[in-house]
Amino acid sequence: MAMTPKRAVAGRRNFLRGGTTLALATAGTLAAGRARALDPGAADPALLPPNVPPWTRSQGAGYLNPPYGLPSRHEAKVVRVLPNPPPAFPTASRTPLQDLHGIITPSGLVFERHHAGVPDIDPSAHRLLLHGLVERPLNFTMEDLMRFPSVSRIHFLECSGNSAAELKKVTGKTAQEIHGLLSCCEWTGVPLATVLQEAGVKAQAKWILAEGADGAAMTRSVPLAKALDDALLVYAQNGEMLRPEQGYPLRLFLPGFEGNMSVKWLRRLKVGSEPFQTREETGAYTDLLPDGSALQFTFHMETKSLITFPSGGQRLKARGFYEISGLAWSGRGKIRRVEVSVDGGKSWADAQLQEPVLSKALVRFRLPWRWDGAPALIASRSTDETGNVQPSMAQVLQARGANAFYHNNAIQFWNIDANGEVQNARA
Amino acid sequence: MAMTPKRAVAGRRNFLRGGTTLALATAGTLAAGRARALDPGAADPALLPPNVPPWTRSQGAGYLNPPYGLPSRHEAKVVRVLPNPPPAFPTASRTPLQDLHGIITPSGLVFERHHAGVPDIDPSAHRLLLHGLVERPLNFTMEDLMRFPSVSRIHFLECSGNSAAELKKVTGKTAQEIHGLLSCCEWTGVPLATVLQEAGVKAQAKWILAEGADGAAMTRSVPLAKALDDALLVYAQNGEMLRPEQGYPLRLFLPGFEGNMSVKWLRRLKVGSEPFQTREETGAYTDLLPDGSALQFTFHMETKSLITFPSGGQRLKARGFYEISGLAWSGRGKIRRVEVSVDGGKSWADAQLQEPVLSKALVRFRLPWRWDGAPALIASRSTDETGNVQPSMAQVLQARGANAFYHNNAIQFWNIDANGEVQNARA
Repeated sequence: MAMTPKRAVAGRRNFLRGGTTLALATAGTLAAGRARALDPGAADPALLPPNVPPWTRSQGAGYLNPPYGLPSRHEAKVVRVLPNPPPAFPTASRTPLQDLHGIITPSGLVFERHHAGVPDIDPSAHRLLLHGLVERPLNFTMEDLMRFPSVSRIHFLECSGNSAAELKKVTGKTAQEIHGLLSCCEWTGVPLATVLQEAGVKAQAKWILAEGADGAAMTRSVPLAKALDDALLVYAQNGEMLRPEQGYPLRLFLPGFEGNMSVKWLRRLKVGSEPFQTREETGAYTDLLPDGSALQFTFHMETKSLITFPSGGQRLKARGFYEISGLAWSGRGKIRRVEVSVDGGKSWADAQLQEPVLSKALVRFRLPWRWDGAPALIASRSTDETGNVQPSMAQVLQARGANAFYHNNAIQFWNIDANGEVQNARA
Repeated sequence: MAMTPKRAVAGRRNFLRGGTTLALATAGTLAAGRARALDPGAADPALLPPNVPPWTRSQGAGYLNPPYGLPSRHEAKVVRVLPNPPPAFPTASRTPLQDLHGIITPSGLVFERHHAGVPDIDPSAHRLLLHGLVERPLNFTMEDLMRFPSVSRIHFLECSGNSAAELKKVTGKTAQEIHGLLSCCEWTGVPLATVLQEAGVKAQAKWILAEGADGAAMTRSVPLAKALDDALLVYAQNGEMLRPEQGYPLRLFLPGFEGNMSVKWLRRLKVGSEPFQTREETGAYTDLLPDGSALQFTFHMETKSLITFPSGGQRLKARGFYEISGLAWSGRGKIRRVEVSVDGGKSWADAQLQEPVLSKALVRFRLPWRWDGAPALIASRSTDETGNVQPSMAQVLQARGANAFYHNNAIQFWNIDANGEVQNARA
């Protein structure tokens, strides 16, 4: 049979801007010089006793008890982390983005952000009240809600405070430390529009108050237009019921909006004609401008991207071929394009977007690269389907001023030194 | 603002075959009579002290240690199960399909099938040998392999022995017991074609032996055409590194082929000109025909579907609206259509397929249904993009005879009695 392998790596790609070319890998010589070449005439080395590993010479462990699987003990470092130093009562933990592959975040590693800890809710005692400007106020059990028609969608979730410290130059080292308030799951639930239809929304309705059942009684105002568009009452995550720290047994989910609005442990929806001006939308989650006034209701998470390999804290052990890989997303829809620079932003090349490219979901991008051993400054830049382009840090600071904290979607540069060590270029 | 809610439920759907219509739900009255209707003029009942639950009146639990999350303690029954009674050394456990939502199987619930237990492999000591009819035999570390260009794809995995007992009428009760050797994950790895290209496959090559590092040294022969098509050397699953029982740190993955061929704990690939006739493809994993001869190398998992709600062991507590929901898949590509019957197969209606419909992946289907309280016999029937239609049990038995064991893709009927109890109709 003739060998016609698919070419996984483009030989060269042309610059999109400027007149030179990125030095990319040439297919056909990826492994040479790295994997150990063997004598084709010798006996099968893997079959000789010294090369048969101990785990092939014995029976493995049996069935797990409890019968719910966990990662290998050799992956014990891949966990959520707290800020350093950890506060007395931690209210956030971060996803190890630099250790993940693909677009799904495993539920055990989805970032946490809570305002009064994680409640332990008995689902049989949980209720969702729907009232206010509706024809028929209703009180739902979980069984009631789970009888409605449901949908499953893969969406990212990002805290509006993600990457905030970078604005203050209180910089983190790793992708997890800097950008780890970001995850992506398959969410299943009932379209909020369906439930509102059941209750009959009155003509003057324009906003909905969402309230959590946690000790903070977390509350946010949601525009009715979003509620009728793609908002979900979510009860499942990556196939199984929501994790406790993700709102078990029920959360609101507003695709593309800042994470805190997807109120967890959802117990109440009140329909009104005006925003409810709750604590979490007046005293927090507003964007303070240079003149001291504040932007309120900045819902969308704007387009952003991030190289996760190579990224801060990692090390390239040898020159040669690497695949640059990362994540891109936009709260306004699909990612249209991701560009990568390996020369500090002087030139950019289009990365490949992993299919399927889904709306308001993480997209994995990849670009083949041959590292020549010289210092390199690498970054990615995303463009979404609305045409919005991820800004530079200078652009963010210029537009938003010294008071900015939330909604930092600036380009992340990583510096690779001659030893292959990768560091946050903002440090 | 004018209310223009999306209609989540079709009022009626026409029959595709036959001259009557299925009694489907009418939108606008889903919750009425189920959720508790409230007096619109009364004080907000959720705000009154007796209705504020205890978990809203106290601070919740803090950050987890270890910092890797697990399901709620209220979901402790959603676990993998063994056959009943369990064998002395269990070699398989099953996914709780009836408790899952969407298409992703959480890694902790992915079915297990192993031939000598689960080895505990140190990834730094693991090697993949590639030899035989190649120009350059190579021995890869995990670091070597993870430098290659990678891809992530969502694919189902099904054991060829899934649903086998039904053929013998040794029937199970639940979707998990009957069909639980089925899961679906996002898999990340290196296209096998890329690695073969590095080694240089010789002209006479036609087959590849894949060998596991477990105590069974599980071996199967893989056609070179499949290896060059969509085969992957997989190291990650649902974002994180493979789970131990899924082949940590490396497995072969052959999308759409019977599960045992996606050899776990992969340590060796030998390129040859003929199939290797290993124990697992001569003494097992063949299809015994009525005349005593056996079909060998029946690789594809043919199109199949399954209603997971309502399904065996569940109970409809009241008449009224329900969403029938289930899973469909095909080892030959995309699912084109799923039909559902609620009258024992006399008539069928098209179910809605949840987007995105991916090739060789589970597809979630949904159909609104109003149960009138009378006994009902429900089933689903899938058609894939090649035009193959899921057969009836009678068709499978007629074609395959009394010796058939593997590759049962027959239509599953569930019987709902007047009490709402759901049972396997083959029992």
